[in-house]
Amino acid sequence: MTEPSDRTRLRRFPGKADYDAATIHAVIDAAPLAHIAYQMEGAPMVLSTLAWREGTRVFWHGSSASRALRAMAGQPICLSVTTLDGLVLARSAFEHSVQFRSVMVMGRAEEVTEGKAAHLEAMVERLFPGRWEQLRPMTAQEVKATKVMALDLSEASAKIATGGPEDPEEDRAWPVWAGVIPLSLQVGEPQPEADSPPDAPPPVLRWSLETD
Amino acid sequence: MTEPSDRTRLRRFPGKADYDAATIHAVIDAAPLAHIAYQMEGAPMVLSTLAWREGTRVFWHGSSASRALRAMAGQPICLSVTTLDGLVLARSAFEHSVQFRSVMVMGRAEEVTEGKAAHLEAMVERLFPGRWEQLRPMTAQEVKATKVMALDLSEASAKIATGGPEDPEEDRAWPVWAGVIPLSLQVGEPQPEADSPPDAPPPVLRWSLETD
Ligand SMILES: Cc1cc2nc3c(=O)[nH]c(=O)nc-3n(C[C@H](O)[C@H](O)[C@H](O)COP(=O)(O)OP(=O)(O)OC[C@H]3O[C@@H](n4cnc5c(N)ncnc54)[C@H](O)[C@@H]3O)c2cc1C
Ligand SMILES: Cc1cc2nc3c(=O)[nH]c(=O)nc-3n(C[C@H](O)[C@H](O)[C@H](O)COP(=O)(O)OP(=O)(O)OC[C@H]3O[C@@H](n4cnc5c(N)ncnc54)[C@H](O)[C@@H]3O)c2cc1C
Ligand code: HEM
Ligand code: HEM
Repeated sequence: MTEPSDRTRLRRFPGKADYDAATIHAVIDAAPLAHIAYQMEGAPMVLSTLAWREGTRVFWHGSSASRALRAMAGQPICLSVTTLDGLVLARSAFEHSVQFRSVMVMGRAEEVTEGKAAHLEAMVERLFPGRWEQLRPMTAQEVKATKVMALDLSEASAKIATGGPEDPEEDRAWPVWAGVIPLSLQVGEPQPEADSPPDAPPPVLRWSLETD
Repeated sequence: MTEPSDRTRLRRFPGKADYDAATIHAVIDAAPLAHIAYQMEGAPMVLSTLAWREGTRVFWHGSSASRALRAMAGQPICLSVTTLDGLVLARSAFEHSVQFRSVMVMGRAEEVTEGKAAHLEAMVERLFPGRWEQLRPMTAQEVKATKVMALDLSEASAKIATGGPEDPEEDRAWPVWAGVIPLSLQVGEPQPEADSPPDAPPPVLRWSLETD
């Protein structure tokens, strides 16, 4: 197991901690959405954004004119990726909980200036393998309008909560339903546009992205 | 429509903005998970936590000893609630997007000291209507071990993205599948503990919480 830094060492429920790169990568790959804390004019702010991993860095993108991306470039940030996997119903209110997988990464946000186009291609291919070469080619103007940001995964922690309720022995006979209600992100039936070509191959979604 | 503050006025895609309390409440009620940006020793941090609404305030809870809750009490924070509703596949990579509902709230986090027990009951009832009175009663010691936090919804914005790809006219004939892949949080079959009483009424989940 990799060693946590003083900042990333879990104090609450240290038994749920995992500092291994493989676990951290798997959680980031399992969900396309990240929340990033940054400072804007001295106050903390959250940015909700899509994020994807390439090797030991996580990336996100937006407008070259975005206030959020401008404010965080070169600055300390904290990025979180979270999945909510179930509701845990115990015999007491106090012991209720949820199942989850969660990663927190700390570091400085870096504005990517080299190879922006390749990272944008990686974003598309991460979500929709094989789609890039089917698309109307990207233009230099589109790349210019876009900012790509990166964060190194060297200072990160995972916290994973699985299993059912952990009522103490004296509560277990209480006559109430106890157990888990599973939750998961469901992928629905693709809905083509009216003018989407009927003979075009249907979209492929690599939802749960493999690690590389 | 309520007026945004200078901080909560959307600059990017202002057409997706909604500052109405009813919309803001509905987004918060639609998802149990929030991400809160706060400052810890001068650096921005994210807390992933369950959150629930009562009237014009949003609440969350944790350990009385939590470093995160201690650091944010009385301080400026930014809270975000987000649902990811679909992936939008366009003819160019540039026009790809997602459907979402998202709320951002800014203000000072307040540590709740009066009526903590009633707020914890409200949390349980918000998720599982009718469950509170079936549970082993909460003890004073459990309430003491728990911190309840609140944030006023007076400075908030919603950003809502619906609809399909918005390719410019000249791209629409490109021969690639275009449309939307819907995403939603799926509630699975409840899994009782081995010693959950077989005659206990099954759990009730008020997933998409009505506004009050
Ligand atoms: C879906 C979900 C729902 C949650 N709901 C609640 C809730 O309702 N109430 C509640 O108190 N907590 C909740 N948590 C846990 C919460 O995210 C914190 O872990 C917890 O509140 C302790 O915070 P702390 O700062 O006091 O922890 P500490 O243990 O002091 O944090 C120290 C370090 O541990 C690491 N760490 C802490 N939390 C996480 C995490 N979630 N993921 C990865 N690394 C982490 C970070 O590097 C952090 O700097 C939830 C988590 C998830 C994913
Ligand atoms: C599921 C999801 C995925 C997203 N993916 C991306 C992505 O990959 N790339 C990207 O650039 N953006 C993405 N966004 C949008 C992102 O959250 C920001 O709205 C956008 O990046 C503009 O940020 P900004 O600070 O420059 O906006 P500005 O318009 O300058 O923000 C001004 C104010 O508008 C309000 N506001 C801004 N964003 C939101 C929001 N999301 N919800 C509620 N109020 C808001 C806030 O009060 C903010 O202070 C995504 C949003 C969601 C919900
Ligand atoms: C799978 C591929 C992609 C997805 C799912 C995606 C998704 C998104 C989303 C959700 C936003 C935020 C919209 C909002 O604020 O409401 C966004 C913004 C943006 N994207 Fe992408 N994107 C993708 C690929 C690309 C590519 C390849 C480029 C550049 C060539 C690009 C350029 C931009 C720009 C410039 C913005 C900012 C728009 C603005 O704020 O004015 N995107 N994208
Ligand atoms: C539906 C009801 C509830 C749910 C779903 C719930 C869920 C959670 C979750 C997910 C955590 C974080 C666990 C972690 O860090 O991994 C937590 C922590 C905590 N909850 Fe709850 N909770 C509920 C009700 C209550 C009630 C009623 C109380 C008090 C009477 C309470 C007291 C606490 C305390 C003290 C902690 C901190 C534990 C620690 O860090 O040591 N919870 N809860």
